[in-house]
Amino acid sequence: MIVTIQLYFRMIAIIVSTNRHHSKSKQVAQFYQNLLTNLNAETQIIDLAELPDDFARTALYENNGKNENFNRLKYQMREAEKFVFVVPEYNGSFPGVLKTFIDGLGYPSELLHKKAALVGISDGVQGGALALSHLTDILNYLGLNVLAQRVKIPFMKKNFVEGEITDPLINKLIAEQAELLVKF
Amino acid sequence: MIVTIQLYFRMIAIIVSTNRHHSKSKQVAQFYQNLLTNLNAETQIIDLAELPDDFARTALYENNGKNENFNRLKYQMREAEKFVFVVPEYNGSFPGVLKTFIDGLGYPSELLHKKAALVGISDGVQGGALALSHLTDILNYLGLNVLAQRVKIPFMKKNFVEGEITDPLINKLIAEQAELLVKF
Amino acid sequence: MIVTIQLYFRMIAIIVSTNRHHSKSKQVAQFYQNLLTNLNAETQIIDLAELPDDFARTALYENNGKNENFNRLKYQMREAEKFVFVVPEYNGSFPGVLKTFIDGLGYPSELLHKKAALVGISDGVQGGALALSHLTDILNYLGLNVLAQRVKIPFMKKNFVEGEITDPLINKLIAEQAELLVKF
Amino acid sequence: MIVTIQLYFRMIAIIVSTNRHHSKSKQVAQFYQNLLTNLNAETQIIDLAELPDDFARTALYENNGKNENFNRLKYQMREAEKFVFVVPEYNGSFPGVLKTFIDGLGYPSELLHKKAALVGISDGVQGGALALSHLTDILNYLGLNVLAQRVKIPFMKKNFVEGEITDPLINKLIAEQAELLVKF
Repeated sequence: MIVTIQLYFRMIAIIVSTNRHHSKSKQVAQFYQNLLTNLNAETQIIDLAELPDDFARTALYENNGKNENFNRLKYQMREAEKFVFVVPEYNGSFPGVLKTFIDGLGYPSELLHKKAALVGISDGVQGGALALSHLTDILNYLGLNVLAQRVKIPFMKKNFVEGEITDPLINKLIAEQAELLVKF
Repeated sequence: MIVTIQLYFRMIAIIVSTNRHHSKSKQVAQFYQNLLTNLNAETQIIDLAELPDDFARTALYENNGKNENFNRLKYQMREAEKFVFVVPEYNGSFPGVLKTFIDGLGYPSELLHKKAALVGISDGVQGGALALSHLTDILNYLGLNVLAQRVKIPFMKKNFVEGEITDPLINKLIAEQAELLVKF
Repeated sequence: MIVTIQLYFRMIAIIVSTNRHHSKSKQVAQFYQNLLTNLNAETQIIDLAELPDDFARTALYENNGKNENFNRLKYQMREAEKFVFVVPEYNGSFPGVLKTFIDGLGYPSELLHKKAALVGISDGVQGGALALSHLTDILNYLGLNVLAQRVKIPFMKKNFVEGEITDPLINKLIAEQAELLVKF
Repeated sequence: MIVTIQLYFRMIAIIVSTNRHHSKSKQVAQFYQNLLTNLNAETQIIDLAELPDDFARTALYENNGKNENFNRLKYQMREAEKFVFVVPEYNGSFPGVLKTFIDGLGYPSELLHKKAALVGISDGVQGGALALSHLTDILNYLGLNVLAQRVKIPFMKKNFVEGEITDPLINKLIAEQAELLVKF
């Protein structure tokens, strides 16, 4: 007799928070996945580049729950107990697509009583400080507990090269964050 | 001889900040249009329900500027000197679709050095307090000056009936706001 | 032989976040203390009305750590493992005195890696929505994990009578929050 | 006969937003004063280091308006038509003392229907991004219109040397801001 127990509740989903193809955020998500794997966490990457092109119409309002390609991402959110949001800075906040994705998750949200860590990235100086603040408000509203230690990676061209973080302080902060998330 | 002078720079565009069809926000936009018409302002309504269904893919990134149906809304933004954003509360902030629309406007933004007034609406108690705070950060980042007097309409079912605001205080605040915007 | 073990690390400190004497916030703190006592938590109230009048000068900058009356409150913060911040709305945010108190706690903060729940109160409609958002940013910056479920009590005159919350929904939300904090 | 007309309403007050003595913010305020003087604006500096040590008790609540040393600063705020807030980053936001000062200004505020520009400074990378966001919420709540162009000076030790800004981009942005404020 074979018993299969799927410990879905231990899963950490890493969200690539833009629908841009081949994004820097995807590379940072892969870097983070390695961090978590080394801490023996089970992970999967959810890349918003896989969202259906028309999901802002076909997965919201009267169409909520009807788009199967959207639902596939939604179920991946459901399976996860914890999240890492890798968030690029667009126009002083996070990408609109991330919020539209959250708007399509329905109510009560797949996020309720779960836990998350936030990573902001930017080409400029901010590293998404305001993006992470806005996102925290929204995630808290939906009942998702956000780890205090938010990590920002500004100046991506200099600080993230060939899939690795070059700045020692940011490396230390993100490693700490990953450990705190596993214990959170 | 006939000379036509189009005083586009005086135009106030009223943004319906959701792509939901037949939204309450649309009705509030029409109410606001009446206020502004009575103050002799030239106005037009820009309803995000008219966004192409797939604009999050076809109007952003490598496709920026290539979707003619998106560009039509973009040009309406360009023609306006001032804006009123009517913003429904979705999941503790504004609709993701509004931010995705802004993300598609390109850079430098059609919003630079212009002026705006914000109106938040909600079925619940908040009237979009956080939504308007987040939106102010983004609009300021893009160089759009936001009028200090933000108006919130909570409890829409009670406070907005048959196209009119029933609460006297909110009526006073929104009339003041419209006047301040015209002079801003 | 008698061994006394003081389980300080289990302590939940409830912060009255204004230095106004006999504040409504104090009454809400006492209400919350009852909730936590019924959940077998050890608690104490830290009332910012007990701050020295001149602490903004005598406990900051070159005087950090030198005011014994300020330090007494600081040590109470140190003893606590978790916090409840009862936060009145002043001018669209929390009282300046709360932030000045936090500014005097030194660095690294007494708050690092601890946990907190936030309660906002107001005479008006907001219940401190923005106050709690701003405070979350600051507490997260200092490494204090904030429970997602923030509770707001608007219209205090109607919703908080003789030391009890009269609104059934708010009562349910705050009881849930207290339980979540104990388990957080 | 000599008639003196004091054009107080043209005055721009530059607020040093900390009560720390001899602050970097004071030096940046003096730099900004030169910018404005060159634009023919009348200015004065209001340094919160001059606040009475015990003002958090003697100028608020039942004592509102009773502390003459506090009132002197309050009247300077009243005389100004526009403001520049020079805001150092303390613990992820602005100094608590700035908000306590605003809490003591009374209601309706001396800030109503006036205009302001914000400058954030920090030793670290942020330049007070969150500080300026929180402050904008509060100033807007009190009816003060905030110029969209907020300027941030991170890495003060490198970017501000002997009373001058060394970074050309920040220099350009702050000069633009000063011009925009004069016309705002």
